[in-house]
Amino acid sequence: MTYSFLDLVKKIDVVPYYFDEGEHAKFKESVYTFISHDGTFRLGYILPMVSKEFKNHPDVVQVDDTKREIRILPTLDTLELRNEKLNALAKSWRDNGIFLHLKGWRNELYTIYDTEKKPYMRLERSFCPLLGVVLYGCQINGYVQSPETGELKLWVPRRSATKPTYPGMLDNTVAGGVGYPQGCLETVIKECYEEAGLQSSYVKDNVSFVGVISYFYQFEKGSFDTERGFVQPEVEYIYDLRIDPSIIPHPVDNEAEDFRLMTVDEVVKHMKNGEFKHNCAGVLTDFFMRHGLITPENEKDCIEIQNRLHRRLPFPTR
Amino acid sequence: MTYSFLDLVKKIDVVPYYFDEGEHAKFKESVYTFISHDGTFRLGYILPMVSKEFKNHPDVVQVDDTKREIRILPTLDTLELRNEKLNALAKSWRDNGIFLHLKGWRNELYTIYDTEKKPYMRLERSFCPLLGVVLYGCQINGYVQSPETGELKLWVPRRSATKPTYPGMLDNTVAGGVGYPQGCLETVIKECYEEAGLQSSYVKDNVSFVGVISYFYQFEKGSFDTERGFVQPEVEYIYDLRIDPSIIPHPVDNEAEDFRLMTVDEVVKHMKNGEFKHNCAGVLTDFFMRHGLITPENEKDCIEIQNRLHRRLPFPTR
Repeated sequence: MTYSFLDLVKKIDVVPYYFDEGEHAKFKESVYTFISHDGTFRLGYILPMVSKEFKNHPDVVQVDDTKREIRILPTLDTLELRNEKLNALAKSWRDNGIFLHLKGWRNELYTIYDTEKKPYMRLERSFCPLLGVVLYGCQINGYVQSPETGELKLWVPRRSATKPTYPGMLDNTVAGGVGYPQGCLETVIKECYEEAGLQSSYVKDNVSFVGVISYFYQFEKGSFDTERGFVQPEVEYIYDLRIDPSIIPHPVDNEAEDFRLMTVDEVVKHMKNGEFKHNCAGVLTDFFMRHGLITPENEKDCIEIQNRLHRRLPFPTR
Repeated sequence: MTYSFLDLVKKIDVVPYYFDEGEHAKFKESVYTFISHDGTFRLGYILPMVSKEFKNHPDVVQVDDTKREIRILPTLDTLELRNEKLNALAKSWRDNGIFLHLKGWRNELYTIYDTEKKPYMRLERSFCPLLGVVLYGCQINGYVQSPETGELKLWVPRRSATKPTYPGMLDNTVAGGVGYPQGCLETVIKECYEEAGLQSSYVKDNVSFVGVISYFYQFEKGSFDTERGFVQPEVEYIYDLRIDPSIIPHPVDNEAEDFRLMTVDEVVKHMKNGEFKHNCAGVLTDFFMRHGLITPENEKDCIEIQNRLHRRLPFPTR
């Protein structure tokens, strides 16, 4: 099967839009809404299998099966209290082997934000997909530009065959989650060294923030009774990094197998074959759009692609 | 008053999002939904004052006050029939002086699309805001880059004091609506000559498509009983055009008064003072984001800005 750019984007922007009324209603009936302690805003969407487990923890949340809502207890009215109670609960689920996903425990905290864009709580990374809360990452497009022709090539690594997620698939030059307490640029610099051996002084001088993409992912579309159905609204900070032809990226940690410098045509071929990790195809599509390689003249779905890659999520963000 | 980038974006992305439940419900109760002849999709949102006039034309539409829907007659089942009937109706309203907005009759046709992204009808430009259908335009950022420092400057025209809309305000280097039968690039080339005297061969070689922005505009937020309340979902195709320092843009038609080459700081100052036409501030914000001038480190609202500038509209688009 050959995927179009829109097909690829739909693989990461999966949750139905409210104006697809039938589809959206079906989605909403299949999940519980995760609500702040004061009842004023949504935090995420939760599967019934997680909601069922939450019922054993009335000291942390109230579960309302009629409204299909899971609300953090009103008494958990500080960031510290929420961090303590929710992470302790996650640990107990992990220790009791209740959710497979928690076997990938990271010991990294991700920040969840309130409607004022202020930190609302900080949760263990592997716990977040169970709650359907917004996650943040950085993605770096490492490219080489011909000084003569202006032609762009991209440095593409293959993920290690032993990675727990998407083993052996093609990946973006560098990527990483934005955990607490790192900032975006700090994460970029750290990951560029760890994943591609790029020196921080070089990265600082040459990397450029170029925007944000966001989409509403579900691991497996329309699946609500296994962990494959976890929903994951995601925001990725996008950076372009011009790489000097004399620099050859190389893996420092074991995250990537090797790097290859590919022409745009090669990258597109691998994308359309479905060889890239899902969200990389989104990042690359955005890169091609910004660099005039996808245009209204050669791509009929320009508008829908752009819209889906910048979806406003129904939850507060940073 | 000084506007933030988010304030400026909110001036063009005005219609409430569905998850702002109270606001969205209020909006929906204040308008009629314009529906395709076969009842399968929405085309736009219409004010009650327009709906009232539509009731005099049962040969064109059915108005349902209970559902608050205006549906094109099922018998108008071809593009040609819809063009004929709806444009004739617009002409009669214009000739009878029913809506002020139709005094700006353009004799330009804009295409409205169906859910397959195929042309559904073509309507007189000045009629479109009465129907709240999606409109398309092109926006060109004409910039000069210092070969030594990489510093960007932008060519900024001031709109003629005699223009019917936004007289005397600052504008994007070049902009224009995408009317039928012109394509995007064709419109860009035509407008670059007419508005800025730029030669088509130069534009062809140097202009680059860099993406699409879209937003849900209402001339005056929350106003539903005057023509200021017309809603206008808009899509703008964005192009960057590097302008050689030896080229000085100059108005050929009477659309612009003069051009000035401004530093980014100057442009930002004028934006924050509210001196730019509304949607230009959106186009410039997108330019600054793509060029690394707005970053997560210096702008707390990056995500919301990007999302609102790429809103997926609740109607079919091209």
